[in-house]
Formats: sequence, C-alpha cells, structure tokens
Amino acid sequence: MDRFYHAALQSESQRINLSVSESQHLVKVLRKKIGSQVEIINGKGGIATAEIQSLDPKGCGLWVYNYKQLPPASYSLHIAIAPTKSNDRFEWFLEKATEIGVQHITPLLCTNSERRKINLERWQRIILSATKQSKQVYKPLLNPLTPFPKFINQHTEMLIAHCHDKPKKELHTIPFSTNPCCILIGPEGDFTQEEIDQALNRGAQAIQLGSNRLRTETAGMVATHTWRLLADIAP
Amino acid sequence: MDRFYHAALQSESQRINLSVSESQHLVKVLRKKIGSQVEIINGKGGIATAEIQSLDPKGCGLWVYNYKQLPPASYSLHIAIAPTKSNDRFEWFLEKATEIGVQHITPLLCTNSERRKINLERWQRIILSATKQSKQVYKPLLNPLTPFPKFINQHTEMLIAHCHDKPKKELHTIPFSTNPCCILIGPEGDFTQEEIDQALNRGAQAIQLGSNRLRTETAGMVATHTWRLLADIAP
Repeated sequence: MDRFYHAALQSESQRINLSVSESQHLVKVLRKKIGSQVEIINGKGGIATAEIQSLDPKGCGLWVYNYKQLPPASYSLHIAIAPTKSNDRFEWFLEKATEIGVQHITPLLCTNSERRKINLERWQRIILSATKQSKQVYKPLLNPLTPFPKFINQHTEMLIAHCHDKPKKELHTIPFSTNPCCILIGPEGDFTQEEIDQALNRGAQAIQLGSNRLRTETAGMVATHTWRLLADIAP
Repeated sequence: MDRFYHAALQSESQRINLSVSESQHLVKVLRKKIGSQVEIINGKGGIATAEIQSLDPKGCGLWVYNYKQLPPASYSLHIAIAPTKSNDRFEWFLEKATEIGVQHITPLLCTNSERRKINLERWQRIILSATKQSKQVYKPLLNPLTPFPKFINQHTEMLIAHCHDKPKKELHTIPFSTNPCCILIGPEGDFTQEEIDQALNRGAQAIQLGSNRLRTETAGMVATHTWRLLADIAP
C-alpha cells in the first residue's frame, strides 16, 4: 500500500488533510482515486490506514482509522558528518543512511569543510522520501549545519572517525550499547589534528572504518551500517 | 603518493609505458613533473614505486622499482546484481562496493530487469578509479551482463536476497567462511518466484538484509559490507 506522511497524525486522528507536496504526489504522480486506501505515517512510529475522501492537489482529505504506534529501533545512532563538496554525494549519503537506519543526522561545519551552505529543506525531502520508500515508520531527524566546536561541546559518548596516523579502534570492536551513540565523520580533507584533540578532550574515542580509504559519504554510510549490524548481532 | 594502474606490472618490470587514459590523468589533471615519484598497481596485488621519465599524454614512461606483492583480502565475495533502471544508481553501487571491498561483480539479466544494455567500459573505469582512490591493490573483476539462468548454472555456494514472503535467513547469521561466497541481488521488481526456485534447486540459500526495504543498489552495497564485516569480526 502506498505510504504518505502527515506529521500531526496521532491515535485520536479521524480526518486529516495532507500537505501540498504529499497531495500532489497522491493526485498527480500516483493518480489515486476517491475511496482508495493508503497508509499514513507521522515519522515518529505512528502508522494508520486511510481512505481518500477528496482529491485536491493543494490538500487531500482522508478518513483515518486503525492507528498503531510501532516500537523504535533497538539502537540510537547519531551521525554528525561534514557535507561533501559535491552535493550529490551528500544527498546520496542521506538517502542510504535513511534506508539502512539512522535516528539523527547533523551536518558539521569543520575547518577543512569545502561546503559551507546547505539546503536543509531539500535534504528533508530526500530523507522523507527514503523513509517512505524503505517502509520505515520513524523518520531520521536532520539538524541544521552546526560548527564542530559547538557540536562537540553539546554531546557526549562520541566516536570520531579519522585517517590520521594515531591510535584508534575499529568501529566493530566497540562494544555495542543501546545507549545513544554519536559518530563524527570529517570532510574530504579530514578533521584537523586540533579538532581531533578537542573531541578526545571531550571524552570521544578515535575510530577507523576498515583499512581502505573511504570517501566522506561512504564513511558515513559504512558507520551507519556497522552500528546497525552490531545492534542486530548483539545478544 | 598518487597511484596509477598498469595491468602488466610485474616483479621483473623495470620500465613501463602508462596507457593513454592513465597518462592523460598524470599529465593533464595531476600535472606531474619529470622525476616525480608515483605508485603503480597492477590490480592483482602488485605495487611498485616509479619515477616519471617522460611526460606524454599518449604514454608516459616510468622507471619502476621496489615491487611488492601484497596478500589478498581474507574473504572472496562475488556480487551478482541486476543493473538498475537508473544508470547513476548502479554506478554508485560499483563505486561503493569497490571502496568497501568486493572481488567479483556480475551484472545479471533477470526477468524483471528494466535495463538490458550496459556500458561495461565505463563501468570498468569507475571500478578502477574507486580502487585507486580507496588505496587498494586488488581491482574487482567485472564480468559481462549474464542471463540469470546461465549464471546460476555456472556457480555454487550462492545466497539469494529477495523480498518474497518465504523462509529466509538474515545474511549476518550465515556462518562466515573464507570460501568464495556469491550473493545474488535482484532488479527493482525483485526476482520472480521461478528464478528464486531455480536458485534454491541449485543449492542456493535464501537471505534477507535487515527489515527495511532496500533499493537494489543499497542492497548490493549492504550485502558487500555485511560480508566484509563478518570477515573482520570472524575469529
């Protein structure tokens, strides 16, 4: 069944009006008919069946029933990653990390960042589309572009992936925990030694992601999938 | 040090001429000078240092020394995957699977395949570029487009990933072995039930890759990374 997003969906909802973008998708792309059934998610674990009552590309009306609240993932992963110079590569990361399963994404502004402007609204749409496409009911939260020093001062339990020739552990050797885990991924030119030291001083652990040199967006995706797999394998 | 590819490099090599494409990259993109040092790989584990002797975009000459033969990966993975309708998405898979580490890739022609023509030469270039970029010395072997029935009749030890509601195991629960492992990934419309039955009759095991519905190219990459991680974790 085709799936649509309505952030305000809750267990008491009886009738909802879809947003303009969701309505246009329903009417103009999928060409649904009145009376057809679809699924509605609120991105926070809520899912309901709905019947199309009115077809309007500016706001379709639907009757909602059979609301269920589904449990969250067995892990909580936050990827803080410097956007790549190529916007395509970063958007690819957003899509793939969402498909695989991540809870929070923060674009990081680092010393070596080449991209310093981002289009948060477009990225939100990519994440929503990948959430629906991969049949998930929780939508990852995307934060605004955040300077590296500000980010590390606001977080704990961090793992920082870098390519400097310094002691670090393979991510897959870090004991899995259901506590929130935050993995930092640097820009194309890597984190600076100063940034790494700042993170280590805040209690972060240095990690690597295998022996091959990975592009930023690949590192973000590999970190996401490693943590997800560690959660799946955990007893 | 920048890395170039020369398939014929061997331990006895003293002087080599790079191909046109590698020479153009050396001369026109990286603007190297005579006397500069670079690395040469043969894609089969051989790596040497080289000094540029002549600059010619049609064939640079290099003196080669310090040849080393490096050991292969601790696993042997073959991904047989139906090319996606969007060429970009498949090329993305080729790049990412190469970065992460795969030994053989076969594009599969399936009943539900939407893409029936491929550009093998362009795909070879993507794989070579990702091999060099990720600092690997073994280049994955890319086979021609192969019809599904032909492929499964020529292989054993296969795992087939599909989304049909039939018994299957999570890939990460399959005991890791250093024996060659071959994972089959279907097209956007999935394998047909007939194709799955053909593979099972040939002794293949049915697998899934987590609970989220993954796009073809994501499934290929997730399968590659799961097997690589199982190899890393294996005692």
